[in-house]
Amino acid sequence: MERNELFDLAPVRYEDGALLFLDQTALPGAEIYEKMETAEDVWDAIRKLKVRGAPAIGVGAAYGLAVVTRGKAEDLAGYEALLRNTGEYLITSRPTAVNLAWAVRRMLRVFGEAKAAGSLGSVADAEALMLAEAEKIRLEDVAACKAMGEYGLSLLEPGMGILTHCNAGTIATAKYGTCLAPIYLGQERGYGFRVFADETRPLLQGARLTSWELSRAGVDVTLICDNMASIVMKNGWIDAVVVGCDRMARNGDGANKIGTSGVAILAKEYGIPFYMYVPTSTIDLDTPTGDDIHIELRDGDEIRTMWYEKPMAPEGVKTYNPSFDVTPAKYITAVITEKGIARPPYTESLAAIMKGGAE
Amino acid sequence: MERNELFDLAPVRYEDGALLFLDQTALPGAEIYEKMETAEDVWDAIRKLKVRGAPAIGVGAAYGLAVVTRGKAEDLAGYEALLRNTGEYLITSRPTAVNLAWAVRRMLRVFGEAKAAGSLGSVADAEALMLAEAEKIRLEDVAACKAMGEYGLSLLEPGMGILTHCNAGTIATAKYGTCLAPIYLGQERGYGFRVFADETRPLLQGARLTSWELSRAGVDVTLICDNMASIVMKNGWIDAVVVGCDRMARNGDGANKIGTSGVAILAKEYGIPFYMYVPTSTIDLDTPTGDDIHIELRDGDEIRTMWYEKPMAPEGVKTYNPSFDVTPAKYITAVITEKGIARPPYTESLAAIMKGGAE
Repeated sequence: MERNELFDLAPVRYEDGALLFLDQTALPGAEIYEKMETAEDVWDAIRKLKVRGAPAIGVGAAYGLAVVTRGKAEDLAGYEALLRNTGEYLITSRPTAVNLAWAVRRMLRVFGEAKAAGSLGSVADAEALMLAEAEKIRLEDVAACKAMGEYGLSLLEPGMGILTHCNAGTIATAKYGTCLAPIYLGQERGYGFRVFADETRPLLQGARLTSWELSRAGVDVTLICDNMASIVMKNGWIDAVVVGCDRMARNGDGANKIGTSGVAILAKEYGIPFYMYVPTSTIDLDTPTGDDIHIELRDGDEIRTMWYEKPMAPEGVKTYNPSFDVTPAKYITAVITEKGIARPPYTESLAAIMKGGAE
Repeated sequence: MERNELFDLAPVRYEDGALLFLDQTALPGAEIYEKMETAEDVWDAIRKLKVRGAPAIGVGAAYGLAVVTRGKAEDLAGYEALLRNTGEYLITSRPTAVNLAWAVRRMLRVFGEAKAAGSLGSVADAEALMLAEAEKIRLEDVAACKAMGEYGLSLLEPGMGILTHCNAGTIATAKYGTCLAPIYLGQERGYGFRVFADETRPLLQGARLTSWELSRAGVDVTLICDNMASIVMKNGWIDAVVVGCDRMARNGDGANKIGTSGVAILAKEYGIPFYMYVPTSTIDLDTPTGDDIHIELRDGDEIRTMWYEKPMAPEGVKTYNPSFDVTPAKYITAVITEKGIARPPYTESLAAIMKGGAE
């Protein structure tokens, strides 16, 4: 049975009948797995970002729906009502999280199909079906991340220095992560990567999450401030940049955590390949270019006062705090998906990937 | 008499016979001027970075030497001994600060020359001479900064958006600063600049100092995280970048606060002029290129734990924390000194400036 350090970092665990969520808000100070027993527990954990990362939220919600409805209904009609009510309630915890609604609706659809097919003889049958479907969602995500990792690893060589920004790692998914997947696969195979993690202001996902999960998995990781990306490239320490993606337009422009576009420009200037890891669920062929992607602005207090013991900026000073930026396709060396690797020109290669074709 | 908001921000003030240092370690939470009465007060203020910035330290030390030795000697011989001992003591507060030793030695030399010329009739004469020399040092720095500001302003136009990194502002000098000098001069003349200040991790000089002093002087300033420089340039909000310099090599490579080289590369990519403000005291013709400049490494706890209420990175995670980086000459549009503007090729233009020639 699979049981290694990396597995221990799973954001969502189901063990001995209990559902456990890693509280990512307590990282890196404490590693706390909270037991989810009620719908309110799950709703709260998603709302408060204890579980975060689109795929991890989906897996957590699916398992949550299966576990918190268990043993509470006397007949199938009662179970169905509870399941549907709980599902709709869970979706309200983060209304903009696409994977959350997707996972809940998939669970409800599978229940509905089994019911229509007459294959549910009892509440116990239904409960077992929901638990199995949650596990299926988890395993599909593991497989997708692993596929991205294998494709990504084919572009890397042992001993390389790799820079990453933000966190698209194992704790944002069911396992492996997206852009960190090749690093974990390489770690399992003795590649000996040296990883540099941008701290990623203002929310410090690189410092709090990436450097934590890579350290825990035994990967050689060095934490730097975002503004040190240029000097580590200049020093000749970086052979490749790997980043995740929140949304990619049809032409290959990719929105990701704020600062990603700057890293891409530096990589181009220093002649370093820049790889964006993009699950096909994140590719939006209906969005023509990056200019059509809306940039969400966040509270300036994240820059001015968050994390600090004393004021680190003048009270109320004006800020600009975009949550992500768009990296133009021209800076992206390759797009790694779970279905294969896309190369420029992206309008053609992404369309081919989405039709099911690999490289 | 000159008395405006900008003057109110002077890091070293001499008013009604009292010497006052702005405690920059308390910024931006509190604006505290501490009265310097003893040599220990001055030593401590320099050591603890309450007064910082090469020119400001020089001015503070000169005034400190004049003020703390006042009224404590019964004859000229006693005054001279006190002056020399106090001077040597003050120099030990920050042994690597070039301007500190330079200012103290200049004060002692001026005393020695006056004594040799027989122009000191009393302790009171000597005390007045020292105070006058400190004021001369201050006014020379104001003039140098103002000259840099005038040259710099000739490259800018009203209404421009300007990005800066770290703090090379009025509180690092006697007045005006180096790269912020044109912004203050423009402010006095109604230029209406819109300034974007990089927060400048890990020590946050941009957030704590630059956004504070610009706000206090009424300049339109927006604080951003370092990794947002790319998006504000992409948005079309930046017409020029202005930065200071810690040391410039003969070929025009310039060392400055970590992150400066990244900003320069972004500026080049977006077609935005990048101006480095370099007092001639900072140009080192004996250093051939930037590769010959030693990069000081600092404590990783500045990245891992400084400023924070809770751990923001895994305890003991490896870090790389260089205090500055070198911006290659090829990214620098022009070098602004107090003697004029140098343009590429810098080997020729900097040599001409150092011989006293302007543009």
